[in-house]
Amino acid sequence: MKTVKGFASATVGNVACGFDVLGFAITEPGDEVTLTLLDERKKDCPVSIASITGDGGALPLDPKKNTSSFVVLKFLEYIRTHKGVDFSGHISLELKKNLPLSSGMGSSAASAAAALVAANELLGQPCTKMELVHFAIEGERVACGSAHADNAAPAILGNFVLIRSYTPLDLITIPPPKDLFCTLVHPHTELRTSFARSVLPRAIPLKTAIQQWGNVGALITGLLTSDYELIGRSLVDVVAEPKRAPLIPGFFDVKQAALDAGALGCSIAGSGPSLFAFSSSEKTAREAGNAMQQAFLSPKTNLDSDMWVSRICSEGAKIL
Amino acid sequence: MKTVKGFASATVGNVACGFDVLGFAITEPGDEVTLTLLDERKKDCPVSIASITGDGGALPLDPKKNTSSFVVLKFLEYIRTHKGVDFSGHISLELKKNLPLSSGMGSSAASAAAALVAANELLGQPCTKMELVHFAIEGERVACGSAHADNAAPAILGNFVLIRSYTPLDLITIPPPKDLFCTLVHPHTELRTSFARSVLPRAIPLKTAIQQWGNVGALITGLLTSDYELIGRSLVDVVAEPKRAPLIPGFFDVKQAALDAGALGCSIAGSGPSLFAFSSSEKTAREAGNAMQQAFLSPKTNLDSDMWVSRICSEGAKIL
Repeated sequence: MKTVKGFASATVGNVACGFDVLGFAITEPGDEVTLTLLDERKKDCPVSIASITGDGGALPLDPKKNTSSFVVLKFLEYIRTHKGVDFSGHISLELKKNLPLSSGMGSSAASAAAALVAANELLGQPCTKMELVHFAIEGERVACGSAHADNAAPAILGNFVLIRSYTPLDLITIPPPKDLFCTLVHPHTELRTSFARSVLPRAIPLKTAIQQWGNVGALITGLLTSDYELIGRSLVDVVAEPKRAPLIPGFFDVKQAALDAGALGCSIAGSGPSLFAFSSSEKTAREAGNAMQQAFLSPKTNLDSDMWVSRICSEGAKIL
Repeated sequence: MKTVKGFASATVGNVACGFDVLGFAITEPGDEVTLTLLDERKKDCPVSIASITGDGGALPLDPKKNTSSFVVLKFLEYIRTHKGVDFSGHISLELKKNLPLSSGMGSSAASAAAALVAANELLGQPCTKMELVHFAIEGERVACGSAHADNAAPAILGNFVLIRSYTPLDLITIPPPKDLFCTLVHPHTELRTSFARSVLPRAIPLKTAIQQWGNVGALITGLLTSDYELIGRSLVDVVAEPKRAPLIPGFFDVKQAALDAGALGCSIAGSGPSLFAFSSSEKTAREAGNAMQQAFLSPKTNLDSDMWVSRICSEGAKIL
């Protein structure tokens, strides 16, 4: 009876200006998926969910509906048709959720990525990490109705990942600057990705689009040249943030608190309600996080929150 | 009687995906502006145009309307108010146009840049090159009604220049990959920038904008990491090229000819009608250029053209 435990960490999609094309992974927190290989197939489905903890009972136990098992099914189908691996056993899945749901922290992508590296390891690594990304993206469709890659890709690959194109999928991994620290603050409120997407316009003024791609180009330059000031100046989102900020209680105060504490920049993590900030030292990142938590606690919003300070993760999903 | 001759080369704005935010300079051809300092002021204007050659009589001789003299007037005004340099003499300007007008090759920006470095030299270099960029951008407003910086900035600064923001102006200089060669082909037809801008939509679908900023990020990554294949894949313009291509006879055939000859990518130079292509060797760049010229000569379009092959210019406008 072979058992493998996979781990994948939280990710931040969008990264201010990089809506739907940029994301990065941090080192903690993350979800754990333990897969156990059983010799005999149970029922008609090769994967079953033995347990889910940490989700408060919110996630489905049906293996075709749960993201982590769904991506393993996709993986099994792929290695059968593309790699000649005809798996006839059964996989029992245990999911330990450490990431809050609907938080903007890439919760579904982390579960999918942890499950995929574990499944790949369990069956002798038939796939590359780049192949696994495809299944993780399919998982996002199940989780939130949109097959976006800005959480799924960094959850698997680590680092910053830029999605140049979705069709065909063209991913570019960008290693993080050495002294870049991420503060992630999760207020205790939920915001569903599907709802956060519904408030976005279908079209935007050309002038607005130009501003956004100027910032995307500058942010990439800042990351690749370790120009921390430029990274800060480029963390401007004129497309999604103005529409989503009203969905996050106290957003502008919390962002200002991060900037006042010395953060390079601050914006919504993914579709929110979490916020991320970048700093060029761990000390500043902690100070920014404390200031952000205080701002969420102000009488106007009165929200408790969790806070993590982390470097950018450069290894991606891994076996524990 | 002091005389200074300035030179600034052709520039390519937009660079496919980087509409209004990216441009680069090549090493030739370029415009020359000779300034002569006279002791006494003639008339009420401190600058007069002694001669313009190479424009076929198309450019205005009124110093307030000609781009090259207009930017010198702006420069004089600035150094009087900001640098305490009260110029009381007179400048006589001779413009030698080597760049075709309305060609997409940054003709007006080259004249402005050449005039500005000459004026700055003539008066003891009161301004930095970055300051000069502001006047060159003002010149673009006079020349085509739009104060865009994607020709003016690289004409002064050389290299690739990314415009992160217009207000405040935030320019990022990106040095070119060592083996990147530009082919520039100018068909003998004109396309006015103001008209080429008028065909663009005021709003674009969010999905289209996302594609564009994915490519901008990837192009910058390719440039900064000398990834020539990535540069090629990123030279995709889903915003301006589809609208402007019909204004350029034979566009798609010429582009395809460049790609078939081995160019990394090909798109409209600025607002056209010139096309640029990138290649990773001088040999390929010449072969692409020959193929593009042949395509313009096909019976369908039957257009003569000029062709230049050049590295990216890394020094910008200079004194000859």
